[in-house]
Amino acid sequence: MAKDIKVAIIGVGGVGKAFVSQLSNYIKKNASTVSVSVVYIARSRAALISKDYSPLPLTAFVSEELDAAGTEPLSVTDLVQFLKASGGEAILIDNTSSIELAKTYPDILSAGIHIATPNKKGFSSEEKLWNDIFAASGNNGGSGGYVFHEATVGAGLPVLSTIRDLIETGDEVTKVEGVFSGTMSFLFNEFAPVGASGAPKAFSDVVKVAKDAGYTEPDPRDDLNGLDVARKLTILARLSGLSIASPTSFPVQSLIPKPLESVSTSQEFMDGLPNYDSEIGLLADEAKKEGKVIRFVGSIDVPSKAVKVGLEKFDFSHPIAGLKGSDNIIAFYTKRYGDRALIVQGAGAGAEVTAMGVLSDVIKIIARIK
Amino acid sequence: MAKDIKVAIIGVGGVGKAFVSQLSNYIKKNASTVSVSVVYIARSRAALISKDYSPLPLTAFVSEELDAAGTEPLSVTDLVQFLKASGGEAILIDNTSSIELAKTYPDILSAGIHIATPNKKGFSSEEKLWNDIFAASGNNGGSGGYVFHEATVGAGLPVLSTIRDLIETGDEVTKVEGVFSGTMSFLFNEFAPVGASGAPKAFSDVVKVAKDAGYTEPDPRDDLNGLDVARKLTILARLSGLSIASPTSFPVQSLIPKPLESVSTSQEFMDGLPNYDSEIGLLADEAKKEGKVIRFVGSIDVPSKAVKVGLEKFDFSHPIAGLKGSDNIIAFYTKRYGDRALIVQGAGAGAEVTAMGVLSDVIKIIARIK
Repeated sequence: MAKDIKVAIIGVGGVGKAFVSQLSNYIKKNASTVSVSVVYIARSRAALISKDYSPLPLTAFVSEELDAAGTEPLSVTDLVQFLKASGGEAILIDNTSSIELAKTYPDILSAGIHIATPNKKGFSSEEKLWNDIFAASGNNGGSGGYVFHEATVGAGLPVLSTIRDLIETGDEVTKVEGVFSGTMSFLFNEFAPVGASGAPKAFSDVVKVAKDAGYTEPDPRDDLNGLDVARKLTILARLSGLSIASPTSFPVQSLIPKPLESVSTSQEFMDGLPNYDSEIGLLADEAKKEGKVIRFVGSIDVPSKAVKVGLEKFDFSHPIAGLKGSDNIIAFYTKRYGDRALIVQGAGAGAEVTAMGVLSDVIKIIARIK
Repeated sequence: MAKDIKVAIIGVGGVGKAFVSQLSNYIKKNASTVSVSVVYIARSRAALISKDYSPLPLTAFVSEELDAAGTEPLSVTDLVQFLKASGGEAILIDNTSSIELAKTYPDILSAGIHIATPNKKGFSSEEKLWNDIFAASGNNGGSGGYVFHEATVGAGLPVLSTIRDLIETGDEVTKVEGVFSGTMSFLFNEFAPVGASGAPKAFSDVVKVAKDAGYTEPDPRDDLNGLDVARKLTILARLSGLSIASPTSFPVQSLIPKPLESVSTSQEFMDGLPNYDSEIGLLADEAKKEGKVIRFVGSIDVPSKAVKVGLEKFDFSHPIAGLKGSDNIIAFYTKRYGDRALIVQGAGAGAEVTAMGVLSDVIKIIARIK
């Protein structure tokens, strides 16, 4: 029997719940070859702790139970102590989007505890944190824990594993380009579809439809400011070997009209947005006259170290133009692949596919430590 | 310092040479964290053996040297003994396309030696060999060596790792569909491009261009018989959980006109091919009238257990229709991804990208054993 691996989970929102369910199935299915025990589950105000390290029940787990039965969450220091005291290998799952928790990754990794997370903050904030995380980790031959974060870009799509494989095997990534936001993908695939005929849609109407369907953040400005895409580009650019100070250290185009940046509620923003439809409508018309469509993309040109996020025009026949629904697309141009990119495409958001990205990281960690 | 990992390489053709070069760079670049020594390099009639397990020089390696300086290759039994006697972990790289060597994988894995290979034969021949290989391996928790074969489908593209991640994390693959042959991709992207105008090309002319450019096997019938695609489909179907007796146990459409199957030389074949241009031309015309193009695809429908290889029609806007050059495209339809597939696309053949697939497998093995 393999040694028992302890798992601690912080964050039980949409992704967290899907993760717990997927992990529970994984544990059952692989019980004969892998032993994994979840010994800690926490949300911001409550935690379940298995003090004797026996596995917490996961099947009937709902976050409401956690609030009812739980105690105060442990501090990160105490959690690390608790996991280390088990005497075996332990993996921390950070299913939050907390920068505060991400700032403790170096300490957690230095203590030999592994991390799998969809939380972008640790990898897309100031460069020192990125450097500290990987210096403390065991990823590059050090003695710390392993850290994997596949789901920080493209959710469960094989994006980070692919760029790592390319670079580790000695290929040179020259350019990365794509649509990195499911929300932005949906907005422009609807607003400016390839070969559209008839009266053009108003951008504000498309944003309203997306908001009502739950495809945007509660305040759509959190999508339209481009920062989510900028964080993903920061991660990919750093993996490509570029030094990126922060996600605001390169050009990021915001689609929020200036006067609406400071309005206090999302309702005021939605009410004001139709006043600016003509600006973006003009861009779309211009593109159409050239046989193109506009898309909100991020790109990294490695030799010139140019990273940027914003609207670009694409020929109808370009794979980025032909995207559908809320799919992401990521094109890697490399020395070995030449003119034709290696492309990964598919749903890049959603609880189930994000949780899958986290679980596949957990499985990779288990393969290394069991 | 990590323990020293021994590597034996069999096969130094195009892929083998590219692999040796990439591995050499990897060893140099990672010398501070990983110790890897190539102790055996063989082609069919000659081998270099480092009897004291000191690393063979790789930088100046050319296969001609091997013939000049080499001794007789070891039998597989002797090679296993030699690697086991080193006392440490060892990885065998099979860069051949030999079924005979593939048949010995179970013995090699049982001896605790790991395997990385682009050789399709072991995984796409009779089902017993597939079962014996994985039963002997350590992949599913057993005590044998690990076996990875990413480059058997799509060369360096993340195809097998993606389907494994999907299944291991509990997703259900419902359908896999795609263009799995660079040669077939090129032939039909040229013969029946989307939105083609002017006089249609003759299929035999396109085959001739591809043959002259080295895009086909020396005898193009080895591409046109569909068996290469059938082998790749066999591998993917088995990974999807289907029982596939052999690559000829499901419908595979051959594009070789019946009377040309038995002509003895590839020249006779090429000379006779223009006589059959009207048949395939008719199919292309028919598709065009429906606003479609024909493509040579493989598909696996998991619930109905239907696997097939052959010509299909696709709408102009379908990702398979829009393929360019000799790219592969593989679309995974799963329960989690719903109606929209997870798609991987890019060059699926060529020495460099195939060698890259093998090296990334070697790196994965090293991560598990170091």
